[in-house]
Amino acid sequence: MSVATAAAVQSICAPLPVLGRDVTVPLVTGGEVTYAALDYAASAPALQRVWDDVAAYAPYYGSVHRGAGYLSQLSTDLFENARRTVAEFLDCRDDDQVVFTRSTTDSLNLLAAALPADCQVFVFETEHHASLLPWRDAGVTYLDAPRTARQAVETLERALADRDPYGPALVCVTGASNVTGELWPVRELAAAAHAHGARIVLDAAQLAPHHAVGIRDLDVDWVAFSGHKLYAPFGSGVLAGRADWLRAAEPYLAGGGASRKVTRREDGGVDVEWHDSAARHEAGSPNVIGAYSIASACKALTEAGFDELVAREQYLIEKVRSGLAEVPEVRILSLFGDDAPRVGVISFVVAGWNSSHFAAALSAEYGIGVRDGLFCAHPLVRTLLGSDPQAQGECGAPEAAPGEKSLNAIRVSFGAGTPDEHVERFVNAVKELVTDGAKWNYRTEDGRCVPDTSA
Amino acid sequence: MSVATAAAVQSICAPLPVLGRDVTVPLVTGGEVTYAALDYAASAPALQRVWDDVAAYAPYYGSVHRGAGYLSQLSTDLFENARRTVAEFLDCRDDDQVVFTRSTTDSLNLLAAALPADCQVFVFETEHHASLLPWRDAGVTYLDAPRTARQAVETLERALADRDPYGPALVCVTGASNVTGELWPVRELAAAAHAHGARIVLDAAQLAPHHAVGIRDLDVDWVAFSGHKLYAPFGSGVLAGRADWLRAAEPYLAGGGASRKVTRREDGGVDVEWHDSAARHEAGSPNVIGAYSIASACKALTEAGFDELVAREQYLIEKVRSGLAEVPEVRILSLFGDDAPRVGVISFVVAGWNSSHFAAALSAEYGIGVRDGLFCAHPLVRTLLGSDPQAQGECGAPEAAPGEKSLNAIRVSFGAGTPDEHVERFVNAVKELVTDGAKWNYRTEDGRCVPDTSA
Repeated sequence: MSVATAAAVQSICAPLPVLGRDVTVPLVTGGEVTYAALDYAASAPALQRVWDDVAAYAPYYGSVHRGAGYLSQLSTDLFENARRTVAEFLDCRDDDQVVFTRSTTDSLNLLAAALPADCQVFVFETEHHASLLPWRDAGVTYLDAPRTARQAVETLERALADRDPYGPALVCVTGASNVTGELWPVRELAAAAHAHGARIVLDAAQLAPHHAVGIRDLDVDWVAFSGHKLYAPFGSGVLAGRADWLRAAEPYLAGGGASRKVTRREDGGVDVEWHDSAARHEAGSPNVIGAYSIASACKALTEAGFDELVAREQYLIEKVRSGLAEVPEVRILSLFGDDAPRVGVISFVVAGWNSSHFAAALSAEYGIGVRDGLFCAHPLVRTLLGSDPQAQGECGAPEAAPGEKSLNAIRVSFGAGTPDEHVERFVNAVKELVTDGAKWNYRTEDGRCVPDTSA
Repeated sequence: MSVATAAAVQSICAPLPVLGRDVTVPLVTGGEVTYAALDYAASAPALQRVWDDVAAYAPYYGSVHRGAGYLSQLSTDLFENARRTVAEFLDCRDDDQVVFTRSTTDSLNLLAAALPADCQVFVFETEHHASLLPWRDAGVTYLDAPRTARQAVETLERALADRDPYGPALVCVTGASNVTGELWPVRELAAAAHAHGARIVLDAAQLAPHHAVGIRDLDVDWVAFSGHKLYAPFGSGVLAGRADWLRAAEPYLAGGGASRKVTRREDGGVDVEWHDSAARHEAGSPNVIGAYSIASACKALTEAGFDELVAREQYLIEKVRSGLAEVPEVRILSLFGDDAPRVGVISFVVAGWNSSHFAAALSAEYGIGVRDGLFCAHPLVRTLLGSDPQAQGECGAPEAAPGEKSLNAIRVSFGAGTPDEHVERFVNAVKELVTDGAKWNYRTEDGRCVPDTSA
């Protein structure tokens, strides 16, 4: 190791403590090993601090917004403070609303339900299904996959300029791809959207766990993200941003909490006055623990410092990419090329391997958890694989028998809780599997590729 | 105490351990006291066993449905097993679906979104807003409050028979009122619905924590309930029942997990194949901890035995009702009268007291957490109070200054975790407040009635 590299390594912060860091799992080849969770892009382990906060609060849990008791008022304050913490985390504008949802998917479905009449939606075909599919009741223009960041902006500008009629429009774009990890030019896309009288929502599900996301700095109208990818897997997500469309929309859920006053009319019908605040879209008892856990994660990441976290993650990304580059059979999937800025999400295929088989071997023989499939971004992965769309199958399910052509891909992803050893073990396992093959036979059972222990 | 009563008391089981049972809160009069959580109808504390199960699982948390790793597969199994446990808890039919939602409100909004075209909905005005309001896109008939269980059935039969056109119809009814605690004649209403070609959904939010709910026994088509009222406050709820309408409906949320295959068409559009299973309405990463916590609560309640739990709760109800009966100033709100079967939910007003003031004094001077307000059932509470609807205000907010006429009510509610001492303290506190008055002054601040500590 050179002096420069040693100094660089020394400056890298330690991983943040997460739950499960000491969990061991059995190997099909015998013995046990600590589990290497490398599927952060699907769902990340809870930060130890998030868990500790939830555990400390749990005995004080009480009915929010609705109770006169001490713990009810404490819980109400905790819930509303969580909203303020998220607003600070995203550097929200003073008049932005922060709505607690159940996930990014839920957040974008809420926004889809709140679009003004005749709103046109523009979305790249490269998006996760959560960003691609909620807009079906609106007029949607699907934009072809760009191959550079600049092409993305140009494609969007052209589409927005050409829209007919030139009415209200919304652009939905991811901050970091859940397949390639590549960063999208959000600030430039926001500027293009606004220049053409459109609004923009940022799907920050994959961005917020890795980078500071400033709603003012990026000048986006809304941001959506999930707690469970932000080290807070307690069933909550966030939609934050402009209040006007949200206030004008019918409540997302009809029920208590969203309703200010309900009266029976003389004619037998019912009149409802709805709240104008975030509560309008939060009917039912709020998930206090979910919201609080997100606030706890926001604080923990902010205090750890995104500069430090990014530096550490880039160091891990470099370890994985340089390691995989030594294996000619590995092809990394990329839209924007090697030099594109990225987060710790890397998808690839291995020549001669079925991806499900490869992922199963990583798990069974090395205790490494990755994901195989199309990653709920079917059009993008098919574009990157260049294979026949009709041959593709169920999201995440292995399709072909071991030895057949790759119909899907393998994704390795990591973040603030990942120790060096996990990515080192992963790189060594890839090399060993490619060189020596799997040590075990595998078969498909209930849609999963599993070790064949029947022999 | 008579011999018979002593024997009856001896046969009463102990409360189930819940989180927060040792939490102390400060009194405005000085000192601290253990908190008496008597707002179970809004949200119940977690069972200790539920918490222990969640805590034991948390380090093993992994991405559900989507990962090849050991913990992902373990978590997927845990999630799907939770679905089976809920199906057993509700004694579901073989072809019923169990969909995990975020709450009862969410469950009923999902069903509202899944109604066939031209479906007419029949709902009593006495329902919680979660049951009253989600049906606005359908033709809704609001039925007047019945004053006996038999009248409820007759009212429904008449309305169903008279419907024009005589097309598809849904009845939505609560199992136990969130205001009066009174049980509704669910089996008879289901029979009436079916006799008239209608279906029926049971809002079991207030019933499931107190009684066994058998979907076959009651012969209802769907059941909805919330985890957070079932001692599992982790952001999940359930809709269980007939699969046909759910399968035929557009997905409740559009996104990954619900989509089996997404392909770009030649014309630039996107085709989606949706799942037919419960996943169709569960887009996004599932709330595994939420679902698992509900399954844990189902098991804990089943193992404790509903016969035991009901016996204990009836004993507590009798303590509260006989205690309040000794206070002439107290009027208990009731639709069906003193002899109606009921769960541990009792609402009342106190002559000469503003309900918010009374509830605030119970909290500040006795450490007792109840709720005041209209309980997200505005038409019902107004009917029971007999007051001017226009004078009513925000759900749960105190409206009038101390000393003014009661515009809302006080609700005390309890369940499997409630020790005798909590309800005894409550009854004594009511008597003392009515006899001696509050020891402190109160004022309204930010919509809450709070002790005036400014003097």
